[in-house]
Amino acid sequence: MDVTAWQNALQAWIEAIGSRHVETGAAALAAAEKATFATNQRIPVILRPGSRDEVAHCLRIANSFRCPVYPVSTGKNWGYGSRVPARTQTALLDLSRLNRIVEYNEELAFVTVEPGVTQRQLSAYLAERKSSLWMDATGSSPDASLIGNTLERGFGHTPYGEHFNHAAALEVVLPNGDCIATGFARFPNANTGPLFRWGVGPSLDGLFSQSGFGIVTRMSIQLMPAPEYFQAFFFRCDSYDQLGAVLEVLRPLRLNGTLPSSVHIANDYRILSGLRQFPWELTNGQTPLLPAALPALRRSLNIGAWNASGGLYGSKEQVAVARRLLRHALRGKVSRLTFLDDRALRLTIQYARPLQFFTSWDLSRAAEMLPPVYGLLKGIPTAHALRGAYWRKKSYPAVLDPDLDHCGLLWHAPILPATPEDAARLHDTASRILLEDGFEPMMTLSLVNGRAFAAVISICYDRDVPDEDARAMACYRRLVDSCRDLGYYSYRLGVQSSAEMDGPPAYADLLRRLKAAVDPNHILAPGRYQPPASASPPARG
Amino acid sequence: MDVTAWQNALQAWIEAIGSRHVETGAAALAAAEKATFATNQRIPVILRPGSRDEVAHCLRIANSFRCPVYPVSTGKNWGYGSRVPARTQTALLDLSRLNRIVEYNEELAFVTVEPGVTQRQLSAYLAERKSSLWMDATGSSPDASLIGNTLERGFGHTPYGEHFNHAAALEVVLPNGDCIATGFARFPNANTGPLFRWGVGPSLDGLFSQSGFGIVTRMSIQLMPAPEYFQAFFFRCDSYDQLGAVLEVLRPLRLNGTLPSSVHIANDYRILSGLRQFPWELTNGQTPLLPAALPALRRSLNIGAWNASGGLYGSKEQVAVARRLLRHALRGKVSRLTFLDDRALRLTIQYARPLQFFTSWDLSRAAEMLPPVYGLLKGIPTAHALRGAYWRKKSYPAVLDPDLDHCGLLWHAPILPATPEDAARLHDTASRILLEDGFEPMMTLSLVNGRAFAAVISICYDRDVPDEDARAMACYRRLVDSCRDLGYYSYRLGVQSSAEMDGPPAYADLLRRLKAAVDPNHILAPGRYQPPASASPPARG
Repeated sequence: MDVTAWQNALQAWIEAIGSRHVETGAAALAAAEKATFATNQRIPVILRPGSRDEVAHCLRIANSFRCPVYPVSTGKNWGYGSRVPARTQTALLDLSRLNRIVEYNEELAFVTVEPGVTQRQLSAYLAERKSSLWMDATGSSPDASLIGNTLERGFGHTPYGEHFNHAAALEVVLPNGDCIATGFARFPNANTGPLFRWGVGPSLDGLFSQSGFGIVTRMSIQLMPAPEYFQAFFFRCDSYDQLGAVLEVLRPLRLNGTLPSSVHIANDYRILSGLRQFPWELTNGQTPLLPAALPALRRSLNIGAWNASGGLYGSKEQVAVARRLLRHALRGKVSRLTFLDDRALRLTIQYARPLQFFTSWDLSRAAEMLPPVYGLLKGIPTAHALRGAYWRKKSYPAVLDPDLDHCGLLWHAPILPATPEDAARLHDTASRILLEDGFEPMMTLSLVNGRAFAAVISICYDRDVPDEDARAMACYRRLVDSCRDLGYYSYRLGVQSSAEMDGPPAYADLLRRLKAAVDPNHILAPGRYQPPASASPPARG
Repeated sequence: MDVTAWQNALQAWIEAIGSRHVETGAAALAAAEKATFATNQRIPVILRPGSRDEVAHCLRIANSFRCPVYPVSTGKNWGYGSRVPARTQTALLDLSRLNRIVEYNEELAFVTVEPGVTQRQLSAYLAERKSSLWMDATGSSPDASLIGNTLERGFGHTPYGEHFNHAAALEVVLPNGDCIATGFARFPNANTGPLFRWGVGPSLDGLFSQSGFGIVTRMSIQLMPAPEYFQAFFFRCDSYDQLGAVLEVLRPLRLNGTLPSSVHIANDYRILSGLRQFPWELTNGQTPLLPAALPALRRSLNIGAWNASGGLYGSKEQVAVARRLLRHALRGKVSRLTFLDDRALRLTIQYARPLQFFTSWDLSRAAEMLPPVYGLLKGIPTAHALRGAYWRKKSYPAVLDPDLDHCGLLWHAPILPATPEDAARLHDTASRILLEDGFEPMMTLSLVNGRAFAAVISICYDRDVPDEDARAMACYRRLVDSCRDLGYYSYRLGVQSSAEMDGPPAYADLLRRLKAAVDPNHILAPGRYQPPASASPPARG
């Protein structure tokens, strides 16, 4: 680290955006250096520019002094590194002050936002206006940035769940401080930027997702018209091996659009972690929770080995037709297929308590989980999923902050073909590896399109337990390697995972040439989604 | 032109791919230099490599001798320049020998093809196998390349009509001869390349569309499962100003997925050019055909001022529900809303002749046009639309070749917001300009998504008429300029249109830096989709 360069840069940044927005306090820096797994990156300074021009100014200074910066929108990238830069000695560029909803077009159904705009903020904005449009939400956190999640190519649960597919007209500050807009938005007077993503000539949007090619300071996000009627569906499989037959009938319905949104399928471990914390009382304080303990827990909590949810959207009649097709397809293959609309949800919650009185089931927790899961299918963000990060803790704090609370959480999110064989193969492999290493194999499979699953496998632990950080990371590496051997690669990487960007030398070389063309001094997010320094053929395959 | 360099390159190309596949005959070169409008680019040689490795070899030779090449898949880019390179003295790299269907996966619904694979070839391939999958077809020509059209971001008429949205796993030969694959396909053992387009890290697919960044030698194309039931719909507006009210009700149905594919709306001039040639007898040989002549022609041919078609796809019940919603929405707003399935189509054609006997309508031509339009909605390619290029000719030849037959055809394809105001504004502007300049304003509006129209405006003329080439090009430029003033930019450019790639200097600079990073010697498709040499702010807006 060139101390003089950093001192000069610091001075310049203070002049550019004001000392109030240049954070060098030890406590604030230490907090920003914390993720839900072990990191040792050091952050010399946090910059909080307040406008696009200030972002550009910050980048020009970074270039002048060769002091790299790492942009985060709101920094809620839980499980993938939170706010921590990929490399040490990188300034954190926090975009949360750019938090304006710049444009809202109800007729053509889109919104234009800055990176600090959170899921909660847009949700409230739409509710206030009694908008006829729905947003899509990712399950992570209401405080997650819409742009941040979209650029990570995250997904949610409505028909607009593949976020990057519904983004257009990116305004981008390039590493040299230039500002461009993508698609037709590059033409100042164009009126179709947010409406048709490709524009004319090479389409550059993809370059600015999962990369360090530029800082997106504005993006248009397409919103879906609220359907006349919505119905959620839920079903479960009581044994793991029932899933195959279910997938055989779900995939065609997803492919032909009868199921217009992702079907989300979670295993028992995953559901359990949403309903409650680790059952220390059942295991005498031992970890992991072994599969043998699950049948009783499933019964008492009224959950299945696999638990699926999805949504039907349309006119009442359209939903009724889809419901009949789904019911017919799943007949005899699943347990407890339930359809739920707004009214039924209200009644269900109302009657959960008396029902519990007459059964052995603990329905209160299921009833607690239902509204957030149901809400996500309508694009309503929820903090509920965050609770899962506290699985190995002894209690939930009033305000959830997995980073500061030393929650351990590592996510691996491989994509796999939507076939029964692939689903079983991944489930078996991940279960074996995590259990061997002392963790519960929590897993979701999302049928993100009619051809592929996005799996999310959580390694969930307590960072306060000695050596658990190292064990978890070793388990993560083993999981990644095994998935790669099976041909399943992650759709998204944590900051610890640049090795996963490796691949054939020609591809790595191309990425390096493109990066050098836009960021010759490598001052933007060095190491993030970049192949390791020395290109080499992949270790396996 | 450096004659020695070209002679050396020629020798090297002959050694690389064999003299049989290196064409230097004057007649063949002259034919390749012809488009449907005036061009003066000269092609020194046509290269026909037979494999990816030969493509790479050709590019390495191009680099060695700084002799640029222009790749075409099958070269049927009618209206946009056919096979003609953007710059003179560019070798034509004809990929039509790479014509294998490499992989076909019925379960996960995709096909992997090389650039020489035509619409006709895939259509026949699927029919032979009695495949349960449908392709999408563009209306242009059965001999058009699937990859060529997809990389131009062309569109068709089924729910998979936005071709580039359904492409994945591009295999690309870079200008330096390196070969890469995009998305997960870059990992040799990945099994999700064709199933999930984004892969991990920056997504590069967009870079290889509408660009000279690489030659795509393989691509996976997602196919749609054939629906249980299909029904086409047709309706018309008898006056131009009826369209606004129709759009107000169509857009919500397109946005909410009730209409899962593009609605294609053609004006009377456009339909006329598909049904017949210019009515010389009505105008005493004068052009253009004035609007005053249209009402009688519309009546005699039984067509509307605007004529729309679209498709409904699903189970019988799903289609019935959609049909009811559409019928209800259009009630009182359109004339002659007709639904047609396979059986009704057969009967309609059968009874067109007797029906004509009892009416004054010339139904034989409409009946002739119906099957191709209907077929396109099911992804069946047709040569019918090509006939429109012969509008100003006196007869149709047995084999259609608009380039060699001196058909004049210039297409401008602006994107506009899907609002009544924008549709009217474009229609008025284009009609005025084309008529003033002596051409019939043929126009289609395709509701490619719920937010935007892709318009196609044809300037259709006879290249054998003296000075008509220059008049048509002047009209085209005026049209482009006027559209730009209104904020409507083309989604796709002809080889004559690199000026339309201009825009803010920062964007042009970025494109240039990216291009230089992958093609430092500018040997691939120079001038194609590249900003003009000296960046300048756009002339207007």
